Amino acid sequence: MYQLIQRLRSCVLSGPFSHSKTYRNIRFIQSGVEATTSSTAGRVIPCKAAVAWKAGKPLKIETVEVAPPQVNEVRIKVKYTSVCHTDLYFWNGKGQPAFPRILGHEGAGIVESVGEGVSDLKVGDHVLPVFTGECGECPHCKSEESNMCDLLKVNPGMTVMLNDGKSRFSINSIPINHFMNTSTFTEYTVVHSGCVVKINPQAPLDKVCILSCGITTGLGAALNVAKPKKCSSVAVFGLGAVGLAAAEGARIAGASRIIGVDMNAKKYEGAKKFGVTEFVNPKEHDKPVQQVIAEITNGGVDRSIECTGDVNAMVSAFECVREGWGVAVLCGVPSTGTFFQTSPFNMINERTLKGTAFGNYKPKTDLPSLVDMYMSKKLELDKFISHRVPFSDINKAFDYMVKGDGIRCIISMED
Amino acid sequence: MYQLIQRLRSCVLSGPFSHSKTYRNIRFIQSGVEATTSSTAGRVIPCKAAVAWKAGKPLKIETVEVAPPQVNEVRIKVKYTSVCHTDLYFWNGKGQPAFPRILGHEGAGIVESVGEGVSDLKVGDHVLPVFTGECGECPHCKSEESNMCDLLKVNPGMTVMLNDGKSRFSINSIPINHFMNTSTFTEYTVVHSGCVVKINPQAPLDKVCILSCGITTGLGAALNVAKPKKCSSVAVFGLGAVGLAAAEGARIAGASRIIGVDMNAKKYEGAKKFGVTEFVNPKEHDKPVQQVIAEITNGGVDRSIECTGDVNAMVSAFECVREGWGVAVLCGVPSTGTFFQTSPFNMINERTLKGTAFGNYKPKTDLPSLVDMYMSKKLELDKFISHRVPFSDINKAFDYMVKGDGIRCIISMED
Repeated sequence: MYQLIQRLRSCVLSGPFSHSKTYRNIRFIQSGVEATTSSTAGRVIPCKAAVAWKAGKPLKIETVEVAPPQVNEVRIKVKYTSVCHTDLYFWNGKGQPAFPRILGHEGAGIVESVGEGVSDLKVGDHVLPVFTGECGECPHCKSEESNMCDLLKVNPGMTVMLNDGKSRFSINSIPINHFMNTSTFTEYTVVHSGCVVKINPQAPLDKVCILSCGITTGLGAALNVAKPKKCSSVAVFGLGAVGLAAAEGARIAGASRIIGVDMNAKKYEGAKKFGVTEFVNPKEHDKPVQQVIAEITNGGVDRSIECTGDVNAMVSAFECVREGWGVAVLCGVPSTGTFFQTSPFNMINERTLKGTAFGNYKPKTDLPSLVDMYMSKKLELDKFISHRVPFSDINKAFDYMVKGDGIRCIISMED
Repeated sequence: MYQLIQRLRSCVLSGPFSHSKTYRNIRFIQSGVEATTSSTAGRVIPCKAAVAWKAGKPLKIETVEVAPPQVNEVRIKVKYTSVCHTDLYFWNGKGQPAFPRILGHEGAGIVESVGEGVSDLKVGDHVLPVFTGECGECPHCKSEESNMCDLLKVNPGMTVMLNDGKSRFSINSIPINHFMNTSTFTEYTVVHSGCVVKINPQAPLDKVCILSCGITTGLGAALNVAKPKKCSSVAVFGLGAVGLAAAEGARIAGASRIIGVDMNAKKYEGAKKFGVTEFVNPKEHDKPVQQVIAEITNGGVDRSIECTGDVNAMVSAFECVREGWGVAVLCGVPSTGTFFQTSPFNMINERTLKGTAFGNYKPKTDLPSLVDMYMSKKLELDKFISHRVPFSDINKAFDYMVKGDGIRCIISMED
């Protein structure tokens, strides 16, 4: 297969399209493996991108010019992307608004070209761009415990590339801001190579793209941080994608009692196939939900995982774990300016409070094995995908998210 | 030796003192082992006790009648006791005031008699009464992770014995309240057998008595909970007995940088022999101490241990640990009504917050091995002992504690 691709590539490079001025990649699909040549390497690529111009206003599909990758950068042809709550949060102008901006951070694609100094990735590699990176050199990357890379950890306020402090996106020379190290709502994006994860080329990109953020965060919060024991009890706060992934992680770990907590009672039915065995709707009780959970578990759950980012839910998640050995894990992204507040006796009574970003997974080191888990059917991803839309309908994907309709909507860049 | 003691005991029981009305134990000391007969078993023992009648007023040595132990109870002849900040806290009328009360919870003594159902302790055993117990039957006792025994965990509001809800202490039939499962400021006390730890009879009780609370709490906070790695950095908040024990634990674990944090600059010199390598006085800086520590450690310490109970120090201790892998351990007892407050981003950035009571040691299971560590010179206790007073001068021990003078003052019940 590789030889066939090489021959095809060779034909292309010497054929009539090799100097095409369309700046478009020429693609050959053969038995499911896609080889991408780089006639566009080193050139600006004009392509379609969904630009957020103003807080809360529909994204607008524009023609954006995407500059070539510089030192340690990779230009990626995005194939599929999905929408995550963090996109919604910044689209709404929360966090640090920086319009115009190309949002999107759950994507999958193929390397179009690489900049100087990139040695672990090459043209045609199937990749997941990830919002938090792994430089491989800093104390965090060298530690087994941390994924908080000093160079490339998530920084939502960052709107430009590290190398020159400038954007690679522009419209009529007006720079368009980057987002979360990735910006996947575009046909082409430029990402620091430390944020680009090479994966099994057999993996369907329209499925594994959802491993770039929320699903991995929830899975890792359960499997890497909460680490529930077999037959233990776990409360999951928030039954969105992250929470369902956390429940799935708890189920894989062997928890026997998985209590879903959500203000929307409709979520329970769908959550059952992610391992949720019980449901508590805080709105249906006149006492704090942590008290309700303590009562039904005779003292509290063994583990809890908070996936909403709501600070009150965080406090409830902490206070509902059992004295002595209970561990609460926070993985929902909180609003700025909020404060977590609890009685210090809740700690002294031997509860543990932990937080995690990206489920403690190191993207380049660990994500390929999650993709392989999917390929070997040890991890189910399909059930997280509730909708599909073409890129031109990207605002529909936002609507689904705003309405809480479904879990993940896959946006196909080529439809 | 055991046979010799049995023979001596046999002589006593049949001799002229066997029905002595003095209600005093008759003691034989042979090669360092002390055998105690129980001519007093089953009888009320009048003895000296230091009674706290009013908040903040000097303790008064009174003759108190100590009733025999009931089911699952042990009456102990207290030999030595020391004063801990928790005694001071309740003496001052904080917590839940319940005067008149016999305070004291860091003691060591010898079993005078046992009640019905006590099978693991016998007359003459050398013991440490401990404020938090181990019933051996509850889920916490059966868990490897917890020492929060459902039946006997510390409850400062408890003023009576579990068996009948009454006190074993009285003066002219007026009940005197128990304290922290122990009440060691008395020549004889009655304790639930689950709170009585049998130790190596060779161990000097005037040294190992300090293992009944503060020192063990600090040691365990470091060795069992914070678990610093070799060559790591640890910040210890509060250089009282608990903090110095935490520093000692960090030193034993191999931490290379132990930063003592205290408002009293005089504490640094003495703290050096407990492993403290650096000192930060928050009063000497115009920025939060967590920021000072982050600066001198290039991002934060690997571990911190909070030993003061001050809620602001708790927040500082949490916020001064490094993102990614930092663990903060709270072991100082907080004031009621205080709240721990921090930005939830401090958790999401992969810091861990834990708390511990009694350093996560299970008293009956684990304390004997700490005593043995002392006997085999793997644990230094002598350096924690700064003063000694006879029982009649117990208020001097309180004065030392109030003034922050020294570390532990040993009170000898027989001097």
